[in-house]
Amino acid sequence: MGGDHAPAMVVDGAARARERYPDVHYLMVGDEAAIKPLLERNPGLGDRVTLVHTADKIESDMRPSQALRNGKQSSMALAIDAVREGEARCVVSAGNTGALMAISKFKLKTLEGIDRPAIASFFPTSGGESCMLDLGANIQCDAKNLVEFAVMGGVFARTVLGIGNPSVGLLNVGVEDMKGHEELREAAAILREKNLPIDFKGFIEGNDIGKGVVDVVVSDGFTGNVALKSAEGTATLYTTFLRQAFMSSLTARLGYLLAQRALNKLRVRTDPRRYNGAMLLGLNGIVVKSHGGTDDLGFANAVGVAVDMAKHGFLDKIVADFATLRAQDAEPEPSPEAVG
Amino acid sequence: MGGDHAPAMVVDGAARARERYPDVHYLMVGDEAAIKPLLERNPGLGDRVTLVHTADKIESDMRPSQALRNGKQSSMALAIDAVREGEARCVVSAGNTGALMAISKFKLKTLEGIDRPAIASFFPTSGGESCMLDLGANIQCDAKNLVEFAVMGGVFARTVLGIGNPSVGLLNVGVEDMKGHEELREAAAILREKNLPIDFKGFIEGNDIGKGVVDVVVSDGFTGNVALKSAEGTATLYTTFLRQAFMSSLTARLGYLLAQRALNKLRVRTDPRRYNGAMLLGLNGIVVKSHGGTDDLGFANAVGVAVDMAKHGFLDKIVADFATLRAQDAEPEPSPEAVG
Repeated sequence: MGGDHAPAMVVDGAARARERYPDVHYLMVGDEAAIKPLLERNPGLGDRVTLVHTADKIESDMRPSQALRNGKQSSMALAIDAVREGEARCVVSAGNTGALMAISKFKLKTLEGIDRPAIASFFPTSGGESCMLDLGANIQCDAKNLVEFAVMGGVFARTVLGIGNPSVGLLNVGVEDMKGHEELREAAAILREKNLPIDFKGFIEGNDIGKGVVDVVVSDGFTGNVALKSAEGTATLYTTFLRQAFMSSLTARLGYLLAQRALNKLRVRTDPRRYNGAMLLGLNGIVVKSHGGTDDLGFANAVGVAVDMAKHGFLDKIVADFATLRAQDAEPEPSPEAVG
Repeated sequence: MGGDHAPAMVVDGAARARERYPDVHYLMVGDEAAIKPLLERNPGLGDRVTLVHTADKIESDMRPSQALRNGKQSSMALAIDAVREGEARCVVSAGNTGALMAISKFKLKTLEGIDRPAIASFFPTSGGESCMLDLGANIQCDAKNLVEFAVMGGVFARTVLGIGNPSVGLLNVGVEDMKGHEELREAAAILREKNLPIDFKGFIEGNDIGKGVVDVVVSDGFTGNVALKSAEGTATLYTTFLRQAFMSSLTARLGYLLAQRALNKLRVRTDPRRYNGAMLLGLNGIVVKSHGGTDDLGFANAVGVAVDMAKHGFLDKIVADFATLRAQDAEPEPSPEAVG
């Protein structure tokens, strides 16, 4: 029931996602009276949907604490319950992000060894696709949190983006060792020392994100949120400028018509709906957040992200990597004398 | 002598800037043997240049502390000396940013009432131009620093961008009052309360930067640096994607040829050289930093920024605004009883 165009966008998105994932079964949680007619207009969807009625929902302006307290019968909470009870393998919501994180954390708990879940997303780069986390779940982070984000981002890049040995960088204001906040320098030292299934590249700068210098960009949630939104804002600005340029003369319009096919491919490549679906990583369950303002195509992609994570055993891989990390933490460090 | 293509780019840039500012006189500080032949190839420039010879220069990889200690006879230090001694009204350098800030701070000092200088720059938005600060001089900032940045940015927008009552926003992860770091919330409270010649708009998000929601974007130096570079990286990425689209078929190439004039205007509008020239604000002197990798056109624009600041009495306006701020700080706050 969350999102600007819910529940129509959700139901139509679910129908669309079945074109790519015909074996998916949906538990749809929400207002039966609103959802039923939508199911009817999507032939073939109805028999893959179990409808769970609730009249209650989380409003988009509810504070997380309020949502936790008052939203026990909300569609969001019941959908998360279904994951906890093993009735569903993942949950996808276009609702209130803070509430989704708070209720998920409360009901699903974090995986062993993980202090704080993070929000991750992926986006186009000149070389393909990269992912970035945290995008806003944790405004303040210490070195340990950043190391955990690096490990989780690595698993995401391996399982969903299909990158064998993903490269990971810490977002900073320069690449030199002495740059940035203390916690960044400390996290870099830990990541350099540990033997993890990632290729740690050290610090990267904001302009390295679009270049695709690394597969996984790690930062605290404040910086990551600002970086991603600045990039989105610039993309929108360029699209506006480009449209204005093509409309500025008759010759330019003609040029646009000729280049239209090629430009449409560019539009598809950079379509934000294609990159819709932020992952709440570190929870004992798969939770995907769709943009609230997306349409059915965008929502279908968010469903796809959740299905990919479930299919590729995302949670098991996270657990395995964190076991590796903890095993190394347990080993006593060799003393300088022993090394000398 | 600083920058990738110095001193040729600096001398050619100075010549180019004279087309727009024919009354500018230059003190050029650096290696006479390298600069003299360059002056000769720019007819008419020579008689507007006083050459100050020094063989010494700040290397691009020098740490600020090292530059301060060992760079006393460097071209950068001598150029800043000229501003301190009143022989020049502003200094423009394409050299090491950290060294430029450290030497400027040491020699020129900060203006009364300003704790920490900041680096500011301006950039295109859908509505025109905005400026952002701090871009990296201060990795950690408290509320007082952010308030000072807001005032300085406001003066910059009024004097150089020519905006009467500039709107100012604090960069955050959401627009609601409870969002973000403590120092942001505290700075917002102060800015709301004071009577300053700016139109304070509260918090803005990363995607509001490109929209031009405010004329002045204020943040700590870490966040500002990441935001600006992320935006720059995205702009580069889009340019690459666009080029690839136009090269992808013969029809698309033909379309490009037809739209070329319009697209060139777009290129000029978003040309990073046009926005070259970061200001070191808060110092008792005008210091402008050019990108190290720019060419003569970019350097000429950095010279233009410095000239505009000097011509429009930037320093006097900063001093006046800070006097206003201090006067309000000095007023006793009305007690709740008195208000009630």
